[in-house]
Amino acid sequence: MELQELKDQITKNLEDGNLHNIKSLLSAYHPSEIAEILDYIDPEIHSNVLSSLDNETASEVLLELDDQHRHDLLEALDNEKIAHIVEEMDSDDAADVIADLAEADVAPVLSKLDPEEVEEVKSLLQYPEDTAGGIMQTELAEVTEDSTVRDAINWIRLIADELDDLQDIYVIDTAEKLLGTVSPKKLLLSNPGVKLKNIMTEPEVSVTPLIDQEEVAKIFEKYDIFALPVIDESGKLIGRITADDVIDVITEEASEDMYHLAGVQDQMHPIYTPTLTRIKLRTPWLLLTLVGELFIALIIVNVFQPTLQKVAILAAFMPAIMATGGNVGIQTTTIVIRSMGMGTITFSQIYKLVISEVKVGLSIGIICGLVAAIAGAIISKNETQFVKLAFAVFIAMVSATLATSFVGAASPLLLQKFKFDPAAASGPLLTMFNDIFGSLVYLFIAMLIF
Amino acid sequence: MELQELKDQITKNLEDGNLHNIKSLLSAYHPSEIAEILDYIDPEIHSNVLSSLDNETASEVLLELDDQHRHDLLEALDNEKIAHIVEEMDSDDAADVIADLAEADVAPVLSKLDPEEVEEVKSLLQYPEDTAGGIMQTELAEVTEDSTVRDAINWIRLIADELDDLQDIYVIDTAEKLLGTVSPKKLLLSNPGVKLKNIMTEPEVSVTPLIDQEEVAKIFEKYDIFALPVIDESGKLIGRITADDVIDVITEEASEDMYHLAGVQDQMHPIYTPTLTRIKLRTPWLLLTLVGELFIALIIVNVFQPTLQKVAILAAFMPAIMATGGNVGIQTTTIVIRSMGMGTITFSQIYKLVISEVKVGLSIGIICGLVAAIAGAIISKNETQFVKLAFAVFIAMVSATLATSFVGAASPLLLQKFKFDPAAASGPLLTMFNDIFGSLVYLFIAMLIF
Repeated sequence: MELQELKDQITKNLEDGNLHNIKSLLSAYHPSEIAEILDYIDPEIHSNVLSSLDNETASEVLLELDDQHRHDLLEALDNEKIAHIVEEMDSDDAADVIADLAEADVAPVLSKLDPEEVEEVKSLLQYPEDTAGGIMQTELAEVTEDSTVRDAINWIRLIADELDDLQDIYVIDTAEKLLGTVSPKKLLLSNPGVKLKNIMTEPEVSVTPLIDQEEVAKIFEKYDIFALPVIDESGKLIGRITADDVIDVITEEASEDMYHLAGVQDQMHPIYTPTLTRIKLRTPWLLLTLVGELFIALIIVNVFQPTLQKVAILAAFMPAIMATGGNVGIQTTTIVIRSMGMGTITFSQIYKLVISEVKVGLSIGIICGLVAAIAGAIISKNETQFVKLAFAVFIAMVSATLATSFVGAASPLLLQKFKFDPAAASGPLLTMFNDIFGSLVYLFIAMLIF
Repeated sequence: MELQELKDQITKNLEDGNLHNIKSLLSAYHPSEIAEILDYIDPEIHSNVLSSLDNETASEVLLELDDQHRHDLLEALDNEKIAHIVEEMDSDDAADVIADLAEADVAPVLSKLDPEEVEEVKSLLQYPEDTAGGIMQTELAEVTEDSTVRDAINWIRLIADELDDLQDIYVIDTAEKLLGTVSPKKLLLSNPGVKLKNIMTEPEVSVTPLIDQEEVAKIFEKYDIFALPVIDESGKLIGRITADDVIDVITEEASEDMYHLAGVQDQMHPIYTPTLTRIKLRTPWLLLTLVGELFIALIIVNVFQPTLQKVAILAAFMPAIMATGGNVGIQTTTIVIRSMGMGTITFSQIYKLVISEVKVGLSIGIICGLVAAIAGAIISKNETQFVKLAFAVFIAMVSATLATSFVGAASPLLLQKFKFDPAAASGPLLTMFNDIFGSLVYLFIAMLIF
């Protein structure tokens, strides 16, 4: 069916109060497709469409929406429906939705949930969103070491409804300490009477709940696994993280790095986020940068104005010097931040990395400096000045690329060392540093030689 | 054991020819840890260390290395060892390694492999690296629809050695057409005598081999799956893609976007890539940008020099105008490229998106323009000029942010429409556009009013 037709039918059925028809109309689509279809429909009726769906589908649709959109929808839904929807979710998703509710709605929604589910959600809500505990789920298959394969299968049968994805079966002792894992393949191929302790393998890797989600992502990349057990300090199994959730984490972390690099403070939906919020998320670094750039103006007015009055042509090459230095700096800082984000470089290689980046930056600076100096000599058309001008342009460009390579490589590493986000060494700040440094070096040399 | 000690012992054992000792020394470490340990050891002896390991461990270590490092190591290993190592790999990884060999080594290595494996590798090599076919593996569990659960388990037992991760069992007809899937959980819980066609579910989603790997990643994100079947045009099952490989794809694609945005042409290892290659990967966009910036110089010298000579203070505010416009443009293009990369926005929303970005850009431009104009008036200290100067600064800053918001939002969308990489609308080019536009508008207004 064409989207336009679908949209018209949904709107019409809604007006007529035929919620059941909407459900049948949408039954042909996957929840993630329904989430996309919502984008084409008037936001005012999104909550009605969601209410028309069965709880399981509604829960999956809700999880496919981006944060802002989900937040808006939750505000429009009544608590009864939210509780029914949350009950269909894995514990990690349920906790995310509860965390997203308005303060006043949390207690009413929790009161409508199954007490066991409330316990699980509460235990997950204690961990920050971006930690292993924040992305783990409590649904998993755990069996004691003396259980047989037959026992394990019977147990899985009992919990099958809440356990959407099986993956590894975790073997624990009576104190719930994690002893080993058994893959579904092993379970399928083993004799029903065999004890799990005889077929389990030691857990390849596990994490504690307060580990950063970025570290969790690196572990999945490194070990090529599909599920990762989460244990507390005593070794007790408290949850697991699955590959599908890690895929979302990697996407989110990469976005965060890109946005921070561009001086955007946080992720936002480019259409659903209100304009004012978007301006607030983007302006702070820009204003800080602007202050730095205006500082250049202050220095020029107070120190270099006579030089510029004498040799107005100097101003013509400021854009080239500042742009080249800025671009080289952004390249360097992007490479360093990405290498750190992907775990390509280890801490012991930091010194090597800075040296290597400065070497490349310097080479590029010399190449660009020569091109600019020659162009400067040609453009200036003045025999007495062109050598001096070319000299000032060359030295300024090489100094600027050298300085931004060093700062671009070293600042994310320093930020990391002091436990800040390396990507906070954002582009706008680097541009500002480069512009101040490049333009002042350039004008200072010019002042000396002219 | 301390790294330094480990390193010394490895070097010593190598000198003494005790390869077996190296193997025992490293047996305590996971292959991905051995890959990291290599970073601390003289690259000259990496191939000897790898040769000392058993083939399975060596194959896993090799796969953990980045491209450049792996390439270097393959060149140093003899073909016999490479063949043994490749035999231990999943077909997708084997194909990647074969594709990475020097032309002259391909035939000798293939001749040493099992003929069936050669067939598989050759069938995978026909697909471009960044497509579904390029990342799929041929190892999977497929059984015909009339097989019983017992038959399926027996079949899995037969192929268990080559099938590292089970995930979904694929149900096919006699022409190998994909009919449905059965999860390991379902297989475990079903009666041995039940036919698979009675318990299978329709495949939720599948792809053809020439689909771009970025689309594959989006499907994994959207459907929260662990494995995705790949079928040819006739519906015949030819491979599967697993979540662990998709995690690598997402990381790779995000890096590519970040590097392109920074005007770096391709991914590179920040230490192992030779300096000359790195300069080559980074210089092209920089030089192109430089030409644009030198064009500004040409115009200033030929058109605006008299104005600048008369009002030298004008030059003082050029950095602020160019930096603000450039930063706003980079923010916009980053948000748009990331939204496209994550599939946050659909094609029908493009028009909305551009409008929305221009609105935000204009607002930010007005805020920054006001700040700069006031600062300009204060800094200029000259009663007759300050109003004119503030006016020129304000108009130039608003025009520049408006223009870069529009270009920053529209250019990746246009590139996408014409099947280019949206991230090729790279930062350096946008900076160049902004600098040309911003500085010329500024000087033109100044020329008119002074």
